[in-house]
Amino acid sequence: MTDKPRLRICLIGSGFMGKAHAFGYTMAARVFDLPYALEFHTLVDISDAAAQRAADALGFAHAATDWKAAVANPEIDLVSITAPNALHKEMALAAVAAGKHVYCEKPLAPLASDALEMAEAAEDAGARTQVGFNYLCNPMVALAREMIASGELGEILGYRGLHAEDYMADPTGSFTFRHDPAGGGALADIGSHALATAEFLMGPAAGPIKTVMGDCVTMIRERPDGKGGIRKVEVDDIGRAFLRFSNGATGSIEGNWIATGRKMQHAFEVFGTRGALAFNQERFNELHFYATDDPHGRQGFRRIEAGPEHAPYGLFCVAPGHQLGFNDLKAIEVAGFLEAIAEMRPEPYNFRMGLRIQTLVETIQVSSREGRWLAVT
Amino acid sequence: MTDKPRLRICLIGSGFMGKAHAFGYTMAARVFDLPYALEFHTLVDISDAAAQRAADALGFAHAATDWKAAVANPEIDLVSITAPNALHKEMALAAVAAGKHVYCEKPLAPLASDALEMAEAAEDAGARTQVGFNYLCNPMVALAREMIASGELGEILGYRGLHAEDYMADPTGSFTFRHDPAGGGALADIGSHALATAEFLMGPAAGPIKTVMGDCVTMIRERPDGKGGIRKVEVDDIGRAFLRFSNGATGSIEGNWIATGRKMQHAFEVFGTRGALAFNQERFNELHFYATDDPHGRQGFRRIEAGPEHAPYGLFCVAPGHQLGFNDLKAIEVAGFLEAIAEMRPEPYNFRMGLRIQTLVETIQVSSREGRWLAVT
Amino acid sequence: MTDKPRLRICLIGSGFMGKAHAFGYTMAARVFDLPYALEFHTLVDISDAAAQRAADALGFAHAATDWKAAVANPEIDLVSITAPNALHKEMALAAVAAGKHVYCEKPLAPLASDALEMAEAAEDAGARTQVGFNYLCNPMVALAREMIASGELGEILGYRGLHAEDYMADPTGSFTFRHDPAGGGALADIGSHALATAEFLMGPAAGPIKTVMGDCVTMIRERPDGKGGIRKVEVDDIGRAFLRFSNGATGSIEGNWIATGRKMQHAFEVFGTRGALAFNQERFNELHFYATDDPHGRQGFRRIEAGPEHAPYGLFCVAPGHQLGFNDLKAIEVAGFLEAIAEMRPEPYNFRMGLRIQTLVETIQVSSREGRWLAVT
Amino acid sequence: MTDKPRLRICLIGSGFMGKAHAFGYTMAARVFDLPYALEFHTLVDISDAAAQRAADALGFAHAATDWKAAVANPEIDLVSITAPNALHKEMALAAVAAGKHVYCEKPLAPLASDALEMAEAAEDAGARTQVGFNYLCNPMVALAREMIASGELGEILGYRGLHAEDYMADPTGSFTFRHDPAGGGALADIGSHALATAEFLMGPAAGPIKTVMGDCVTMIRERPDGKGGIRKVEVDDIGRAFLRFSNGATGSIEGNWIATGRKMQHAFEVFGTRGALAFNQERFNELHFYATDDPHGRQGFRRIEAGPEHAPYGLFCVAPGHQLGFNDLKAIEVAGFLEAIAEMRPEPYNFRMGLRIQTLVETIQVSSREGRWLAVT
Repeated sequence: MTDKPRLRICLIGSGFMGKAHAFGYTMAARVFDLPYALEFHTLVDISDAAAQRAADALGFAHAATDWKAAVANPEIDLVSITAPNALHKEMALAAVAAGKHVYCEKPLAPLASDALEMAEAAEDAGARTQVGFNYLCNPMVALAREMIASGELGEILGYRGLHAEDYMADPTGSFTFRHDPAGGGALADIGSHALATAEFLMGPAAGPIKTVMGDCVTMIRERPDGKGGIRKVEVDDIGRAFLRFSNGATGSIEGNWIATGRKMQHAFEVFGTRGALAFNQERFNELHFYATDDPHGRQGFRRIEAGPEHAPYGLFCVAPGHQLGFNDLKAIEVAGFLEAIAEMRPEPYNFRMGLRIQTLVETIQVSSREGRWLAVT
Repeated sequence: MTDKPRLRICLIGSGFMGKAHAFGYTMAARVFDLPYALEFHTLVDISDAAAQRAADALGFAHAATDWKAAVANPEIDLVSITAPNALHKEMALAAVAAGKHVYCEKPLAPLASDALEMAEAAEDAGARTQVGFNYLCNPMVALAREMIASGELGEILGYRGLHAEDYMADPTGSFTFRHDPAGGGALADIGSHALATAEFLMGPAAGPIKTVMGDCVTMIRERPDGKGGIRKVEVDDIGRAFLRFSNGATGSIEGNWIATGRKMQHAFEVFGTRGALAFNQERFNELHFYATDDPHGRQGFRRIEAGPEHAPYGLFCVAPGHQLGFNDLKAIEVAGFLEAIAEMRPEPYNFRMGLRIQTLVETIQVSSREGRWLAVT
Repeated sequence: MTDKPRLRICLIGSGFMGKAHAFGYTMAARVFDLPYALEFHTLVDISDAAAQRAADALGFAHAATDWKAAVANPEIDLVSITAPNALHKEMALAAVAAGKHVYCEKPLAPLASDALEMAEAAEDAGARTQVGFNYLCNPMVALAREMIASGELGEILGYRGLHAEDYMADPTGSFTFRHDPAGGGALADIGSHALATAEFLMGPAAGPIKTVMGDCVTMIRERPDGKGGIRKVEVDDIGRAFLRFSNGATGSIEGNWIATGRKMQHAFEVFGTRGALAFNQERFNELHFYATDDPHGRQGFRRIEAGPEHAPYGLFCVAPGHQLGFNDLKAIEVAGFLEAIAEMRPEPYNFRMGLRIQTLVETIQVSSREGRWLAVT
Repeated sequence: MTDKPRLRICLIGSGFMGKAHAFGYTMAARVFDLPYALEFHTLVDISDAAAQRAADALGFAHAATDWKAAVANPEIDLVSITAPNALHKEMALAAVAAGKHVYCEKPLAPLASDALEMAEAAEDAGARTQVGFNYLCNPMVALAREMIASGELGEILGYRGLHAEDYMADPTGSFTFRHDPAGGGALADIGSHALATAEFLMGPAAGPIKTVMGDCVTMIRERPDGKGGIRKVEVDDIGRAFLRFSNGATGSIEGNWIATGRKMQHAFEVFGTRGALAFNQERFNELHFYATDDPHGRQGFRRIEAGPEHAPYGLFCVAPGHQLGFNDLKAIEVAGFLEAIAEMRPEPYNFRMGLRIQTLVETIQVSSREGRWLAVT
């Protein structure tokens, strides 16, 4: 029925992000004219029962618990890693060693040194890689990037980024793996999204972030350990940073997981000499745009609603205003990666970029501890 | 891999709504634990090429151009009709005659008399049916309905509904099938959504709409006929109505396809003695709720963001604030219908309801012509 | 210090609107270069104590309880009437008979027949008159009117107006003078604002409202009479109307005083072939404007914030975004009236216009009772 | 007519803030039951003509150009200083030396050392003083402060403040006194408002700001000097800071005068363990409040609209939703100061507080230059 080459997927994990990957592959295959015919080959989870249940639900032909065997299976072309963060490295290294392409959830690894090893291994092996940054694939964010890059906003005067949620705002909530001193904390967990968006948007016009000044704070210093005791928390609940981009543009970001009431405040404002943009993932099918050359008395932020003129929205829906959902963003993410595998375009957000974001996170953390500006190397 | 009974689908049409159906089936199969294993059997379109292309893209095993043969095919269990409105009746009657379940896009038929024939045929044949009302499956609309029905808002004092878009606002746009005097016009095309939402929300508390007073107006009286000539337009560009519900509650709706700038203003406000709700499909992952028993000085409309506590949002995403998209609403619609086919629940919006909405539309149109209130029979 | 002619004011009433008049005169005298030096001469209230207290607070030289004497006093030039509605007529007739100019709160009179008598008496006497419509003086509403009148929105395709509040939403609230069958009800009380705004905005482009179809409903049919008994309510809680303007443009309005949670939902949307506007008094320093000639992919409603380019905002504040308050709107209203008294401009909203709005209200009420369209005479 | 003691005012300056003071006194005298009868005695401006024109317009009995004589005049009780910033010190010192109370626009002085001298002189002289922070008198900000102080939000976890406008965003705009290295820059000019709000809100619960880390940047490095040449700009266009409050709470602020499109983005968000608040001066009659103890599935930020339950709103208007304007905030500011003069309450924002804010500004500036955290002394 189709003569596209097939691409056989192994998905590790079937929780929040495991499902999101599966949904992303599923919708991508229907919405886009992908370069591959996708085969949902093997789903790996922690027990036979969980793996089989998830394989059935998500449409995978095989269920497995031994991720090493699955990753080594010559029938697999692409491995999606959504296991706990601590396992990302070992899994990814095994997958690229076995000649697979790898799509790994963020954070790529708890430490930048690990991420570097992963990026280099992938590059040496010629693997295509992707890190799941979720929010960068939004057509309205792509529009923002294009407007900044093209000069439509003039020279960029300032940037303000934010990712705030409240899933750790309850002081009685238990200590989790996200509080692990190795790689945990709000800055790493969601501040990383704010950093990824900042460089994604500003990069073409302003170059990468050159120096940072961090402010990482722990507000809830103890949490129940789930076993009746109390455990000290050392990672940041809020991670803030001042930013300098290569061309001298400046900005700030904040990652905050104790922002009571906020569920998805991934937001930015960017100001240029000719215009400005404001965006909030809380209403992510909108981009607010101010143009200084609008007529006198008629100026104001205009609420641009996503529509077919903002590719690839039109592939999901031919009429404007109907809106994409979060899982649709994952489908766009998948499609971009598959095109990169097919060498139709560079990798949108590969391990090298995952390393970059992790490096930014760690440089901000060190800067915060040392109370001084640091160059990002 | 699964022992669910299979359900074999024939999809007629692959345009805007054809794709939405296909996406809906696809996502429903992944997101929900459906009572059936879905088989994407046959896609019917207007030419071999179009049908084959769409079948490949949307994952159907067979492509066809002869809808009659497809509908009669004993291998088919369910027929999805997204062909032009004028064909809905013939297709649906053939499908139910062949023992199929039918999922038909709205409007069910250009005329209520046709819709009645379809509803009766389906009921006689024991077919399960569904009409695609798109916006009713939104978890936030379900929440609104539940709040109204449960008395959380107190006694309902007033309702205001709206569906406004601008796809016909350009006077130079051509005459299309939507301008056809038989069944066309803004009230039938999108005012029907406002009516469906009004009865869906208010029904449990206030009963069905009992009488209506219509105001249907044609503002752009001529349009290019696409062949160099001009064609007179007789259908309404705006259809308004005053409403009386069975329990005496009152309200109004407007359907408007010349609302410049509006892409998806499907909105309602409902006021009760203990609270109020405001909703707009422009930001459909939110419901605004005012509670009179909030403390003095702390009252206000609160913006409830969709989350896992608003089923079935949690099946799509375990974290709040991530948002559903339009195609996700279609997946929820599909899931509800499949459960109805499996006799796990009544049909959510069957042909009888499609007839009901068409009856409301026509009664409003006649009321408008006659300039007087009419009972809805 | 100034050689402006003086204008001596008598204010009747010192409640909600009495204060608003006093504040309006006070600020107008500071903000505008008025044609007159205002003298706050006499304040009339119901008792000596109340009158003296209000005179002291609001800066009037004299306090009085005998409005007839005050109105007849040759030292008075202008009478501001903010007494209960039922007294408007007698007071206004006495004032114009005594050669005064009159600024009367709305509704001008309970019945159009009274308003007509008042308008004619004023015209015969050569008095300048004004009715306090509050919301029409907003610079953003003036901007909207200008954009409609100038053709900036193209041909007008539709209008939707609303004035909803919740001060009668509590069914246990007592019967008041506002429930009086002679002149009471939501349509008269606040729907009149929606009507005034509709004609104010649309008039220059579409002419006056020509025919109406009304829907006036009483939802809370009994209220405590304040003396331990129950009193039947016959006036409308919600008054809706379909509208036809002289040039064929159409629209609707709603006045609603049982709109739980709404404090000041005086809103409109107007759609034209080249653009659209949306406004809500809840955020009355903003006007939302959609322009169809914005570039493709950059279209959206833009939020214009009030600034010095929207006269007379700049007289209140030289910087944009600082915002006017409700009492500032009254100051603008006052200034316009004083300019009319000085014959620098026509009366902005005189008794004839008060009559007009009352006529619209009554025609809608009769139309509702008779269930048919009526011409507005 | 009244036996209140009189208070005789001398206003220096009649520009933006001069008018705002005059309007504030005017409305305060009508709206509040002030402890004094205000006399608008002398208006001082730069020329006889300007002074006379302003005195006439703003209702002052006398016009003058010699501010020293005016300030020394024994008939004056209170001096309002709205002259250029560079003159604040000399004027204020002269006024307190002459035994007057002083209401001075912000910034109190270009340098903290000057502000200290002024504060000490005032305290030595027993003068009552006030600095015009504009935004702190808003009833909704007072409500926010009360909610934070009372523990209604629980323990405070984070604060984010902002004051962004765009009046310096045009790179072709000329060099002005605001660019003067002594005291100029965005942080001093409007970042000071963000700092004042931060301490005003957080103070009762978290104590004063203890340490800061600044980031002050100049983006537009040259401006026309207005004489055909170019002048180098050394002051900051954006001033950012991380903040530590005395109790360990943390936050950030930004002052930004090149925020294209922003006219009055004076905003804050504050997050506590039991609730959160969000505010924006762009819609300053609203406060958004999230309460964690709202029922499951009904949580969300609620938009509280200003009303009579938020004192002193009710003195301006007895009905909710009508809204205060900027000049009304000045009236509230005036009233508070007059009550402090009458020893009915402490000074709300005296010179000591002006000094405090200036100290914060300068500490942030030094911190920025030195690239390290500094204690605020």
